[in-house]
Amino acid sequence: MLNDFSERWLPVLEAEMRTVLAGGEAATAVHYGMMHYHMGWVDAALQPVNLPAGKRLRPLLCLMACEAVGGDAAQAVPAAAALEILHNFSLVHDDIEDGDETRRHRPTVWKVWGAPQAINVGDAMFALAFAAMQRLPMRGVTADITLAALRIFTEMCVALTEGQHLDMSFEQSDRVTVDEYLRMIQGKTAALIGASVAIGGLIGGAAPGVDEALRRFGQSIGLAFQIQDDMLGIWGDPAVTGKAAGNDILRRKKSLPMLHALSNSVTGARFADLLNRPGFGEADLPEALQLLAAAGSQEFATAQMNAFYAAGLDALRQALGDRAESSLLWATAQWLMQRNT
Amino acid sequence: MLNDFSERWLPVLEAEMRTVLAGGEAATAVHYGMMHYHMGWVDAALQPVNLPAGKRLRPLLCLMACEAVGGDAAQAVPAAAALEILHNFSLVHDDIEDGDETRRHRPTVWKVWGAPQAINVGDAMFALAFAAMQRLPMRGVTADITLAALRIFTEMCVALTEGQHLDMSFEQSDRVTVDEYLRMIQGKTAALIGASVAIGGLIGGAAPGVDEALRRFGQSIGLAFQIQDDMLGIWGDPAVTGKAAGNDILRRKKSLPMLHALSNSVTGARFADLLNRPGFGEADLPEALQLLAAAGSQEFATAQMNAFYAAGLDALRQALGDRAESSLLWATAQWLMQRNT
Repeated sequence: MLNDFSERWLPVLEAEMRTVLAGGEAATAVHYGMMHYHMGWVDAALQPVNLPAGKRLRPLLCLMACEAVGGDAAQAVPAAAALEILHNFSLVHDDIEDGDETRRHRPTVWKVWGAPQAINVGDAMFALAFAAMQRLPMRGVTADITLAALRIFTEMCVALTEGQHLDMSFEQSDRVTVDEYLRMIQGKTAALIGASVAIGGLIGGAAPGVDEALRRFGQSIGLAFQIQDDMLGIWGDPAVTGKAAGNDILRRKKSLPMLHALSNSVTGARFADLLNRPGFGEADLPEALQLLAAAGSQEFATAQMNAFYAAGLDALRQALGDRAESSLLWATAQWLMQRNT
Repeated sequence: MLNDFSERWLPVLEAEMRTVLAGGEAATAVHYGMMHYHMGWVDAALQPVNLPAGKRLRPLLCLMACEAVGGDAAQAVPAAAALEILHNFSLVHDDIEDGDETRRHRPTVWKVWGAPQAINVGDAMFALAFAAMQRLPMRGVTADITLAALRIFTEMCVALTEGQHLDMSFEQSDRVTVDEYLRMIQGKTAALIGASVAIGGLIGGAAPGVDEALRRFGQSIGLAFQIQDDMLGIWGDPAVTGKAAGNDILRRKKSLPMLHALSNSVTGARFADLLNRPGFGEADLPEALQLLAAAGSQEFATAQMNAFYAAGLDALRQALGDRAESSLLWATAQWLMQRNT
């Protein structure tokens, strides 16, 4: 059912994004070419390639939400394209800010063309995401609903920068609490997923309050999804995650389980000492995992994840009533939570 | 008359921008503090300071255009704030892209807080500029006009990134034509001034076609203004410009007169050799100025500037008819062109 939906809508979404990001003038061909490279449509010589696309989770959630409230998903396609372009803008800038040199097994935009051009390309994608939103009236969406959708979209963009600000600030900080961490992923991960579902619902004609419940569904699922990701980074099966075992421990990543273990009144100081020990590496993984276990950090993270997941499903029931459990949104939430099994 | 208008509207504009950029949460105080620093409201320790504000040219043109077509400038205040915030976003990112360490005699945002945070702060201001635009309905602007204004605003944002792309590309290029240069400043400088005037007119209730004529006025004046700036960088009086004589020659800046002299079939190659000579510096200024004179580059740039200025005034006459010459927009265009006298 999820596959049918993806197969039907992904080509429509891809075509919409290609239209919005088309460019045209010879003078700016490289400017748009960099965007096409990031989207996976061309190689670094700007020649067409056939790469597997990203999972396009956010735009698909938007289209599903539109259908879930009885709307025509075709009307939400410009918003779905906008959400995916916006997501990709944020990846281009995050890669510069984090100094990441590869993404999906290819050099990042800044690595190929330099940070100055990459900053500017991100800005262009940011602007073009707004241009995509403004194509909603072409699909018969009223001016009022378009503006309401733009308001959610813009608030989400601001939240995204707040989350990214906190994420970068945490790297410089010795003491980050679990609450601060949740506030950060709320902005950095959950806001965009929440906005995707809310905007889809709004365009589909959701009754007042329903779009807000849909937003809470998306946000909660987004939080659960991020915490799951945090756990996979520590306890995930390398064969499944594609990353080395204990990867996030070795990177000293301030993810939820790590922060929880660091804040433990009995073993937290020992865990911090271990992570800061000169030469800390793979040989120290067993001890690190023991301290995480002593603090009960996996149980804590699992409980948090489950609580957000349950809150998300509750919000979906509020939004859709009896139709919640048979909806594609419900199925997608379930599917997301089963990544590690 | 211009002063009366500025004195009346600058405090209103400033208040609107402070509302939009307020933030609020303790966790993100530094994120918003960096924006306040860039706007000149606080120092690097985020303590309030009283600095002279920028000239706020673009928002004032927006408000003047609104009044010029018979509208109430108060309705255009959110758009005016959006235009100034957007302009400042572009400065934050340009400073990173160009590696500029000071702006208005203070360290740039990236110089104080590092490029990663500065990129993200620029993104936040970009998003908040859109948030400012979306406050138009609070002032009684209809949803349709708000969307039309957003469309002009978004197209201008895209044009800005295209201009910046070309500007950065030219630095890597040996051969830039005058036409390519004009295309670049069209995006980098003129598009924002054109959009400012067009959006003000639209909100003021301009008849169909009038907002487009206003946009052409703003764009042409923007081009003339940039070319004037180019000339001041070479022949300007240091006492007036605050820059050393021949500053842009020493920086080998690819401005209009420089490109014109480089493209001269008789003396262009000698000019290029001079600029590329090892140890090229102040002692070479007289020879450089001679070659610019031999190519007639000052006359060429003056003629281009005057042509754009005249085209701008023509467009304003088309937009406003008999009221053009007595309008504040006309007076502002005249004032801008008299900077060097």
